[in-house]
Amino acid sequence: MKAFYGDLRVGILGGGQLGRMLIQQAINYNVSIRVLDPDADAPCKNLCDDFTQGSLTDFETVYNFGKKQDLITIEIEKVNVDALEKLEQEGILIYPQPRVIRLIQDKGLQKEFFKQNDIPTAPFQLIENRATLKKSALKFPYIQKLRRDGYDGKGVHKVVSEADYSTAFDKPSIVEEWIDFEKEIAVIVARNDSGELKSFPVVEMEFNPEANLVEFLISPSTLPADIQLEAENLAAKIADQLKIVGLLAVEMFLTKDGKILINELAPRPHNSGHQSIEGNYVSQFEQHLRAIFDLPLGDTRCISNAVMINLLGEKGFEGLADYEGLNDILKMDGVYVHLYGKKFTKPFRKMGHVTIIDNDRQLAIEKARKVQETVKVKV
Amino acid sequence: MKAFYGDLRVGILGGGQLGRMLIQQAINYNVSIRVLDPDADAPCKNLCDDFTQGSLTDFETVYNFGKKQDLITIEIEKVNVDALEKLEQEGILIYPQPRVIRLIQDKGLQKEFFKQNDIPTAPFQLIENRATLKKSALKFPYIQKLRRDGYDGKGVHKVVSEADYSTAFDKPSIVEEWIDFEKEIAVIVARNDSGELKSFPVVEMEFNPEANLVEFLISPSTLPADIQLEAENLAAKIADQLKIVGLLAVEMFLTKDGKILINELAPRPHNSGHQSIEGNYVSQFEQHLRAIFDLPLGDTRCISNAVMINLLGEKGFEGLADYEGLNDILKMDGVYVHLYGKKFTKPFRKMGHVTIIDNDRQLAIEKARKVQETVKVKV
Repeated sequence: MKAFYGDLRVGILGGGQLGRMLIQQAINYNVSIRVLDPDADAPCKNLCDDFTQGSLTDFETVYNFGKKQDLITIEIEKVNVDALEKLEQEGILIYPQPRVIRLIQDKGLQKEFFKQNDIPTAPFQLIENRATLKKSALKFPYIQKLRRDGYDGKGVHKVVSEADYSTAFDKPSIVEEWIDFEKEIAVIVARNDSGELKSFPVVEMEFNPEANLVEFLISPSTLPADIQLEAENLAAKIADQLKIVGLLAVEMFLTKDGKILINELAPRPHNSGHQSIEGNYVSQFEQHLRAIFDLPLGDTRCISNAVMINLLGEKGFEGLADYEGLNDILKMDGVYVHLYGKKFTKPFRKMGHVTIIDNDRQLAIEKARKVQETVKVKV
Repeated sequence: MKAFYGDLRVGILGGGQLGRMLIQQAINYNVSIRVLDPDADAPCKNLCDDFTQGSLTDFETVYNFGKKQDLITIEIEKVNVDALEKLEQEGILIYPQPRVIRLIQDKGLQKEFFKQNDIPTAPFQLIENRATLKKSALKFPYIQKLRRDGYDGKGVHKVVSEADYSTAFDKPSIVEEWIDFEKEIAVIVARNDSGELKSFPVVEMEFNPEANLVEFLISPSTLPADIQLEAENLAAKIADQLKIVGLLAVEMFLTKDGKILINELAPRPHNSGHQSIEGNYVSQFEQHLRAIFDLPLGDTRCISNAVMINLLGEKGFEGLADYEGLNDILKMDGVYVHLYGKKFTKPFRKMGHVTIIDNDRQLAIEKARKVQETVKVKV
């Protein structure tokens, strides 16, 4: 491994904001990054050493891009895993490993993995299509999730009564019990090839109920220490069982009776770790690089209370993005703006995020609400 | 001013490590950066939207590059100011302003500016050449500094006795009294076009006696509060008198009898502010961007004790750079590596820096010494 030398050819599948923030960090390690993304205006385009426009799901495209790299990582799971497996057989390092991506791509396989490994998760059934959905024995309300290609709240359907059958997905899905949870929490864990493993402290998430996107994230959690420890241990257990190399984001529900249920996994940097750039001694992006280069993992402790909000495209606006109120929030101390280089906004598109740092947790939350009221992405 | 929109064309004169770290920060603000640098392998080359290889001191080259920008900034003073003045007259924003760059380019003009504005500085004389040096009335030992083009300790000659005349520079210079100082300190101050002005806390520097480069920087200073306040006020006074827009790094001597003397100025991000990336709420790079885009200036307070060391090319090694010991220092908590993307090392070349953060100042210093002993840039 020749990290630090600038002649290690590292490819990222996907050129969105996660790749962009990974590149910002990779600069410090002299890592030259090449990117494959279908969008000619991808956020990474002008920041990488070499940009290839092309499909992430097409075998030939991924294989041909991959052949030119020494190491490949991802910033999105929806990639052609067959091509990655072939590249892996040919000696190219692929982190996370193709078998891990394959498992996580399919929420059905994820759920079965949890079951086989005694990892607590909501009871579920696998179904083939809409017809089998109707025959499932679950009690209303329950949740249907597409096994593949769901993201950012898409591919999720709530079934409250028989009336919801007609709008259900007619594709392979999981159906799972509706969890009336107290909180959604997340732990990001990193594992390097030497087997070193480190969890970030638990964060708490608040979702935008309409878009089903993380809208508000608070770090660190103030849940009781035993619950936090359990969450961190669970995340570490999963990473260890998967033998993943890289980051693993583990989203969890905390039920009203204090149980933790694993919701889903992402084998990459994740929205629930953006606050780590300013809020923790090592950021999730640096940690991912350390993991895939088999470097010692960094110190995940929090520096300060941090609250992160996503800047989502305002409802009702579509077109060239205009950022209202940014000047105003820059007057506030401890406010960090991260824009993603996206030219066009549309409702709920992730256009950026803002992290608010304050030693006083309550003040950080209040500032975050102020930021949320002030900044609007319009046209 | 259309910061945040990605369609503001910002040009940097110079594509070295300062430009590189500026770009890392500019990514957060969607600012698209174009770079002019004579080196085809400049550290910024693959990170900017558009790279032009060309001379920074040639009128036509700078003018033609500049015509394509909306705003120009610098990461090195040795640029063609005539071209910048013409561009400024034609309506392009140039920050820092050409008149400020012209003044600071010439250590003689700098010294006269200090004198005219009652800014304490070491007594000096302006001389034309080696012959006038011999006639100067200063007592041995004294210092000869070239008026132009000195940097990183180059262009400085110590005159201890008549024997040193023969090796003195035969060019317009300043000669100034040898200051037997207690400490070298620095303050970076920022000023935006609205006139808002903010100083970073005082830092203390230790120089490599052989290379005359900053080797070891400690933030914040532990000097008495009144001395620190005086240093910050002096820096602010100079920035205000210059009406500079952007950063101004002010290097100072603290004499053994507790007086502050201004040594020299740099109108740009500076080596004495690198620790601000992790050590302060706002980094010097973000502050420079805020200043030139006339945004509210950020919070300059320290987050933690920080010690910065430059990674200089090891004496006796020249060629493709190899970084010894980096893996070892990454095992230590609070250690941040910044490599500059330079392929080739040579003795004392600035290849990167490392910042060490620790709430315990003494521990930070000890870790920094450990880092210094461990990391070697060889071939």
